[in-house]
Amino acid sequence: MYDFGLVGLGVMGRNFILNVADNGFSAFGYDLDAEKVNSLKNEGGNLEQVDASTNIKTFVKNLKQPRKIMLLVPAGKVVDAVIESLLPHIDKGDIIIDGGNSFFTDTDRREATLQNRGINFFGAGVSGGAKGARKGPSIMPGGSKSAYEHIKPIFEAVSAKYNGEPCVAYLGPKSAGNYVKMVHNGIEYGLMQLTSEIYDVLRKGGDHDNDELHDIFASWNAGRLQSFLVEITSEIFKQEDTLVKGRLVDQILDKAKQKGTGKWTSQNAMDLGIPVPSIDVAVSMREISALKDERIKADALYDRPTVQHMEKAQLTDLSEKALYFSFIVTYAQGLHQLADASKEYGYQLDISVIAKIWRAGCIIRAGLLADITEAFKAEPALPNLLLSATFVDKIKDTVDAARKLVAFGATNGIPLPGLSNSLTYFDAYTSSKLPLNLIQAQRDYFGSHTYERLDREGIFHTEWEA
Amino acid sequence: MYDFGLVGLGVMGRNFILNVADNGFSAFGYDLDAEKVNSLKNEGGNLEQVDASTNIKTFVKNLKQPRKIMLLVPAGKVVDAVIESLLPHIDKGDIIIDGGNSFFTDTDRREATLQNRGINFFGAGVSGGAKGARKGPSIMPGGSKSAYEHIKPIFEAVSAKYNGEPCVAYLGPKSAGNYVKMVHNGIEYGLMQLTSEIYDVLRKGGDHDNDELHDIFASWNAGRLQSFLVEITSEIFKQEDTLVKGRLVDQILDKAKQKGTGKWTSQNAMDLGIPVPSIDVAVSMREISALKDERIKADALYDRPTVQHMEKAQLTDLSEKALYFSFIVTYAQGLHQLADASKEYGYQLDISVIAKIWRAGCIIRAGLLADITEAFKAEPALPNLLLSATFVDKIKDTVDAARKLVAFGATNGIPLPGLSNSLTYFDAYTSSKLPLNLIQAQRDYFGSHTYERLDREGIFHTEWEA
Repeated sequence: MYDFGLVGLGVMGRNFILNVADNGFSAFGYDLDAEKVNSLKNEGGNLEQVDASTNIKTFVKNLKQPRKIMLLVPAGKVVDAVIESLLPHIDKGDIIIDGGNSFFTDTDRREATLQNRGINFFGAGVSGGAKGARKGPSIMPGGSKSAYEHIKPIFEAVSAKYNGEPCVAYLGPKSAGNYVKMVHNGIEYGLMQLTSEIYDVLRKGGDHDNDELHDIFASWNAGRLQSFLVEITSEIFKQEDTLVKGRLVDQILDKAKQKGTGKWTSQNAMDLGIPVPSIDVAVSMREISALKDERIKADALYDRPTVQHMEKAQLTDLSEKALYFSFIVTYAQGLHQLADASKEYGYQLDISVIAKIWRAGCIIRAGLLADITEAFKAEPALPNLLLSATFVDKIKDTVDAARKLVAFGATNGIPLPGLSNSLTYFDAYTSSKLPLNLIQAQRDYFGSHTYERLDREGIFHTEWEA
Repeated sequence: MYDFGLVGLGVMGRNFILNVADNGFSAFGYDLDAEKVNSLKNEGGNLEQVDASTNIKTFVKNLKQPRKIMLLVPAGKVVDAVIESLLPHIDKGDIIIDGGNSFFTDTDRREATLQNRGINFFGAGVSGGAKGARKGPSIMPGGSKSAYEHIKPIFEAVSAKYNGEPCVAYLGPKSAGNYVKMVHNGIEYGLMQLTSEIYDVLRKGGDHDNDELHDIFASWNAGRLQSFLVEITSEIFKQEDTLVKGRLVDQILDKAKQKGTGKWTSQNAMDLGIPVPSIDVAVSMREISALKDERIKADALYDRPTVQHMEKAQLTDLSEKALYFSFIVTYAQGLHQLADASKEYGYQLDISVIAKIWRAGCIIRAGLLADITEAFKAEPALPNLLLSATFVDKIKDTVDAARKLVAFGATNGIPLPGLSNSLTYFDAYTSSKLPLNLIQAQRDYFGSHTYERLDREGIFHTEWEA
């Protein structure tokens, strides 16, 4: 009898199961594809540690009760189909864990349905890519707290470790885990967009070549910007192309794809009424990038300003500070969304725990997350990272560089939308007075939508004089 | 027997029915509130022209067949409830017109259900506020093309006129009308945010007082910026407060409310994959404005740069150009969304017709719309306004001012997110090459998501060297 079952033996599933086995738990895989089943059996080595089958009955009857069955299959209908196919064979008290990027309301629906049948259902986002699944991902589980005790030893063993602490924790009921993973990915979109902008401004504004870009990002990764994305960015600039002479990055088509989690983050933030403009514009930029044919036509119609180069060391210094500033602001927006979603959906999230389990294993892991963990430990109800004493000095130290770089990009025609939105978000969020009194005046003028006043309580309407 | 029926005798409904009567059609109103019914009867004067009842049977039996029944009630469940209450009393071939801001998928659902029962259903967005409803709104109807012939004479009579042409036209099947109205409102959010930013930069960057602001906006309204929003903005700065000495605008609380149509526009644009960042950030700014308590706390923690004032005439000139530039870009984004939605939802929209019926009556009416109408008449399949020969010179003439103003805002801590997003959208949309090749490299690095190449066809994956 095996400790752990896994449905879906693609790259992620196979790697996850081997990771489970490496950590002393026996695991059984299931996939309809015999090739995948056989390849896992071969890779697993010892069949008592890792076995697999194309037969669902064989799969289920080989698992210890309560059965712990994780799905690593594409989000959407496939998840429902797999659950349906498991139901006739499993028993009350068994546990199904959806490890994919399911939309959180789907998880709520599945959890409610399965609870009625006595089955425990978890939505558990897994981040870290294929390598993370194999060597230690960050895992974000949500579901029944008592049932979590059954999967906790396995998840803690397989997860990434930060200073010995596992990058997994019970996050909350229902879809808490999927929701947190969704916002994780939204932040990831934001950080990726920001690194791409800094790449752009360094090459266009300072003529840095790929070797210099590699060195710059590598040196940043040794400092306060230390993070997985900065690290792999430095490595990307070194990668030689195998088809033509030169670096691979220069041959990659500038159309960025997406799988929807960034978009969901933005759309749901709007439902909550929480501003996440650094994430929104990262989604927009992927969309604009996809319009390559239109961009080529438009490029031919307009002149771009001649870039007034900045001295390399100065530009690099501004870029480091601006990137650090905008990373903080992007995390601030995503965590603000989580804090609000926690109230709205009853997740009872502990943001310090989330920051903690993001410190290793996941795509947005960064040195910064240790500071964020501390900030939320000190003030669990902190509404926004920008209000944390831990971050005020870090922001003050870097915001002027962000101002200079945004101005440089605007003047020279280098689009820095993520950086601009991080800066305008900061400037608006830290303004006790905004010009939106005018918008309220306009709304009352044309639609009698009423307004409030600064000097007294109440709801007012004016018959405006035309 | 009356020509036209209207359910919901609030401000909009009462005004609309009086408008119908002014134009020679007899109209009958229905509302459960006897006070509203009586007040309409009094205002209408001649009961043969305008009558009303609290009794639904009386209402329905007083209408000529096919009955034309317009609803001006709050979007959501009320619309469904009113339809349910009408159904037992009306006949096949009758027409129900929802004049509210219903979400477009609700309209599709209602249209399909009612079509099965032989009833024609229209979603017809009405813009122009209370005054527009009374004196001539812009109306955006979608539904059955043949049934539209019955309502066309009334709608054309009551609508606003631009050079004698009615600001109403059949737009397309199903929810085409509600969808167009939704995007109209999204553009409205964008334009309002932009005017509020220009107000902010003029007062903070050039110390313009309310009288000067009035003069500036009034003079702009006499030029290429001529538009309803610029016009009312100029008037707003003149409005005296009645409770304390000074101008009313200075006492209005800077928390802007929203009713959802801007948010829906952004959310649906993301579903379509169409970038509308100038609208997205207008939604974000209303959200940030609502966080007044947090903003006050944050303001106390951070210093703002001392604003380096710009000479008044220069700042005004830059502002006029930047506002014109960003208005164009905002319309471009919204119309881009409409063109794509038309394909996605089968609306078969004619964008030149939409621009045409927006030229008068509605909140986003502007001199610019005459040029937009021409641009889409010349090229009906124009994917984006920025690609139109009509607009290239207008953009070229103003983009440098937008650059300078964005740089000025960034440097001086005056948040100009709508303007920034309009500029970065422009710079990205007109870039044949964007730095998102790096994002594709990152995605392939950590998630094996593959990439395409510039130099050859195909899908590629690299085993990146760490």
